[in-house]
Amino acid sequence: MTEPTATLLISCPDSPGLVAKIANFIYANGGNIIHADQYTDCATSLFLIRIEWQLEGFNLPRQTISTAFSAIAKPLNATWQLHFSDTLPKIAIWVTKQDHCLLDLLWRNQARELPGTIDLMISNHPNLKAIAEQFGIDFYHFPITKENKAEQETKQLELLHQYHIDLVVLAKYMQILSPKLVEQFPNVINIHHSFLPAFPGAKPYHRAHTRGVKIIGATAHYVTEDLDEGPIIEQEVARVNHQDTVADLIRKGRDLERLVLSRAVRLHLQHRVLVYDNKTVVFN
Amino acid sequence: MTEPTATLLISCPDSPGLVAKIANFIYANGGNIIHADQYTDCATSLFLIRIEWQLEGFNLPRQTISTAFSAIAKPLNATWQLHFSDTLPKIAIWVTKQDHCLLDLLWRNQARELPGTIDLMISNHPNLKAIAEQFGIDFYHFPITKENKAEQETKQLELLHQYHIDLVVLAKYMQILSPKLVEQFPNVINIHHSFLPAFPGAKPYHRAHTRGVKIIGATAHYVTEDLDEGPIIEQEVARVNHQDTVADLIRKGRDLERLVLSRAVRLHLQHRVLVYDNKTVVFN
Amino acid sequence: MTEPTATLLISCPDSPGLVAKIANFIYANGGNIIHADQYTDCATSLFLIRIEWQLEGFNLPRQTISTAFSAIAKPLNATWQLHFSDTLPKIAIWVTKQDHCLLDLLWRNQARELPGTIDLMISNHPNLKAIAEQFGIDFYHFPITKENKAEQETKQLELLHQYHIDLVVLAKYMQILSPKLVEQFPNVINIHHSFLPAFPGAKPYHRAHTRGVKIIGATAHYVTEDLDEGPIIEQEVARVNHQDTVADLIRKGRDLERLVLSRAVRLHLQHRVLVYDNKTVVFN
Amino acid sequence: MTEPTATLLISCPDSPGLVAKIANFIYANGGNIIHADQYTDCATSLFLIRIEWQLEGFNLPRQTISTAFSAIAKPLNATWQLHFSDTLPKIAIWVTKQDHCLLDLLWRNQARELPGTIDLMISNHPNLKAIAEQFGIDFYHFPITKENKAEQETKQLELLHQYHIDLVVLAKYMQILSPKLVEQFPNVINIHHSFLPAFPGAKPYHRAHTRGVKIIGATAHYVTEDLDEGPIIEQEVARVNHQDTVADLIRKGRDLERLVLSRAVRLHLQHRVLVYDNKTVVFN
Repeated sequence: MTEPTATLLISCPDSPGLVAKIANFIYANGGNIIHADQYTDCATSLFLIRIEWQLEGFNLPRQTISTAFSAIAKPLNATWQLHFSDTLPKIAIWVTKQDHCLLDLLWRNQARELPGTIDLMISNHPNLKAIAEQFGIDFYHFPITKENKAEQETKQLELLHQYHIDLVVLAKYMQILSPKLVEQFPNVINIHHSFLPAFPGAKPYHRAHTRGVKIIGATAHYVTEDLDEGPIIEQEVARVNHQDTVADLIRKGRDLERLVLSRAVRLHLQHRVLVYDNKTVVFN
Repeated sequence: MTEPTATLLISCPDSPGLVAKIANFIYANGGNIIHADQYTDCATSLFLIRIEWQLEGFNLPRQTISTAFSAIAKPLNATWQLHFSDTLPKIAIWVTKQDHCLLDLLWRNQARELPGTIDLMISNHPNLKAIAEQFGIDFYHFPITKENKAEQETKQLELLHQYHIDLVVLAKYMQILSPKLVEQFPNVINIHHSFLPAFPGAKPYHRAHTRGVKIIGATAHYVTEDLDEGPIIEQEVARVNHQDTVADLIRKGRDLERLVLSRAVRLHLQHRVLVYDNKTVVFN
Repeated sequence: MTEPTATLLISCPDSPGLVAKIANFIYANGGNIIHADQYTDCATSLFLIRIEWQLEGFNLPRQTISTAFSAIAKPLNATWQLHFSDTLPKIAIWVTKQDHCLLDLLWRNQARELPGTIDLMISNHPNLKAIAEQFGIDFYHFPITKENKAEQETKQLELLHQYHIDLVVLAKYMQILSPKLVEQFPNVINIHHSFLPAFPGAKPYHRAHTRGVKIIGATAHYVTEDLDEGPIIEQEVARVNHQDTVADLIRKGRDLERLVLSRAVRLHLQHRVLVYDNKTVVFN
Repeated sequence: MTEPTATLLISCPDSPGLVAKIANFIYANGGNIIHADQYTDCATSLFLIRIEWQLEGFNLPRQTISTAFSAIAKPLNATWQLHFSDTLPKIAIWVTKQDHCLLDLLWRNQARELPGTIDLMISNHPNLKAIAEQFGIDFYHFPITKENKAEQETKQLELLHQYHIDLVVLAKYMQILSPKLVEQFPNVINIHHSFLPAFPGAKPYHRAHTRGVKIIGATAHYVTEDLDEGPIIEQEVARVNHQDTVADLIRKGRDLERLVLSRAVRLHLQHRVLVYDNKTVVFN
């Protein structure tokens, strides 16, 4: 077992001495930093940092770290998150009928590649219920129509709260979330089957085939109110050529989608992603 | 020296026996095929083939091959081109101020990677004249304004004819060709500094930076009346991250642009590209 | 359903007219070619071709095609194989304890990416038996020691014959096959977890870490008597950096191994791979 | 113009508080950190850090920074380098007959991609003298034989000192440097035309072709006494297939060599590379 660590993700206006102040806080309390990476966005003068240290030997009890760090963060006007590596985030996976991303996430979770627990599955179709049962995950079927969407989303949101879900992963969930849902639960990662901003919206592989591109892609991003416009976490591409039919693009795309979504989820679960200005900073 | 070859590029409605008929034509005249590749587009039932054979030992004199093959092509309703590998296409490079694609093409031409002769350079600015002189290439400066564009294009077109140019390469030529020019001289390859169809038009690196993409690209395509909408010949991509400024994207993009443009030009000069339905078939 | 096709894979000494003769055979019998690709190795003057045509409308009954083609192949001194796309090859997967390649092959087979049937699993450990049962595949456990290896291989070989296996896939089978077994059953694809010829043999990820490489790889190859020296079918790579521990290389490598092995198996099952001179020609 | 910065590259045994101590040194003197990245090698408990800050507003005069930092470095048992971004390293490029890497370095230097000055060219053949003259670089021709090698190296070393060279770039210099030369001038970057450790030594493209690999590569590394065994700075790869002749591999390889060498040189010139245990840490 790896030893538990604490991670601070901090954003604040840039000013001299930020690294020193934050490093001093950890050093003064006996912590040993094992990862530190920072970035300053010149356009907005925003400073962003990720700092991770070993909890063993750290003098502050866990429950007091937040209060202690607040005293430092406040004068810096910082927004920040504190995470402990042994407090596993709770994940809900939303699916429709396709299983490739779902199976990949489940397998990687078993293989300990994804530090979280998959506690909940939600789907607008019953097709993948057997997989949920096989892995011992609670599965809820919410058929969606134009008429019942708002009502169903209210129930879905209740479930997220009931299960104390930290992260929703849309693993080929073929419904658009309403702005209201996104506002109330902002931690949602989606996989889009194109190299955004190329081919947003429906049927990207068909359109890629029609356009005759030589490379296709997939994009994992946080969901925002604007469809396929959220902050991009990860992208990957694959070569195609004139011989590839739409079915070939879909097949090659499945591999991209699996890889990109699982990488993005892993980065999020490791608290390596910070969002600002509709973009991500990925500290990896 | 490699031995001279002949290459047929043929498109026609699909029907049984096409490969046999074309291969028989070459075999019956004593030719040895060294490359054959074919593709049938199912949606349009269009058959496309590239076939290359050694001229040594071929019984038909060069100047009679076209006539002889016409007898086969006509009943097939085929459109076709015949090329000889030792008849080097004549190239005109159009530039503005940036030299990276130009220098790369010149260097690759010297290194015999691009089977053609670069006989003409046209620019809307005088900046790169010294490079033309250094390589012994005729250089013409055509300043372009809204008012004189049509007039200048007429002169540019005359130059293309005067120099018997087969291919125009827009190596970062920062002007849009008029539909009339494109119609009268259709063999034009352009390099666009984005992963089309993402970021068509102006300032793609700035827009890629604003969007926060994790991968940038470059696209070589034949020029058509519709800006950045022509048949794509080749694309390539590179990873970027939050640390990359617009200047970094431009720098990384230069490498992509050089690679993609030279690959596309090489494929064209080797007669490996066929266009149909605003797409390319690349036989490589 | 796609319509059934026949595929000929042919190797013979190069001579004029080969494409014409083979294409004529298919045309004369009413066949419509849907894929043809050929290659001539200049060093050995060996001609290799893959030709695939639709069986619908082909005048020769299936069982007579071999005999009919023999008459053409004999004077050419050709070795050749004839395959029908609806005769699915039978696959045996050999494993040890790791499940990632196995699960990937099973999932792709379910998703119809791998045109074959997985009928048999063999392992030197019992760990993955539950997966075999879940997918309804016969599982045989053969513990291997230095003493019993020859004896066990005899039994393994019997099983391959009993199940009429066409292809053995070593999906992280951590035993070296004896030359005798390889000689008697030559259709064996292995996945090696390095970018061969770098790091052949044991513990490639550890050695890659020690060497400080910036890119790791995986290699799928046919098994020959010489360990990790067989004809390479497919390779893929991934970037690593100084932050990656051996465990990270192993994790990143699992993705490479899954992708590379499944691509190689798919190419083999589609009859796109020809071997000569310890190399492969891949017609894709 | 970008504003001048100072960069510290530090290695020392790991202990708590290192980031704090170093960041405090810069903060206490009014410096604004613009890049900080650190890494701890767990196997050796070695801590490595790169820290860059703006000189504008920094209270210590340049010439006193070293002395001031020594007081911090000594108790930490640190080895360290201090660099100023406006003090451009002096580069010597060594070549033989091939010009592609040389031209690429010269072009990138002109385009300000490589922050250094190319002051000296050394070659064992006179072929590339004209390029040196064109770019106004002093060129020295040292024919090398088994007999005169030691003597010539003594003169070459003298030239390096005379020109105050900081970095030697072997841009396809087809001679092996003697251990004595490497010992006396350790800052030497070489480009090897294979994906090391595959195909060390002579004729890697020929051997790659014989082996039938599906991917080729190039490797930039620091030169050590052991041929092709030095710390790897950067690697890149390209796909090849059965159609590629040795000449094609050489052609594709030229692009890899240019890219990889220039990236490695840029990383070195930006003081982003630290060496330990025959490996590199690249802070980019």
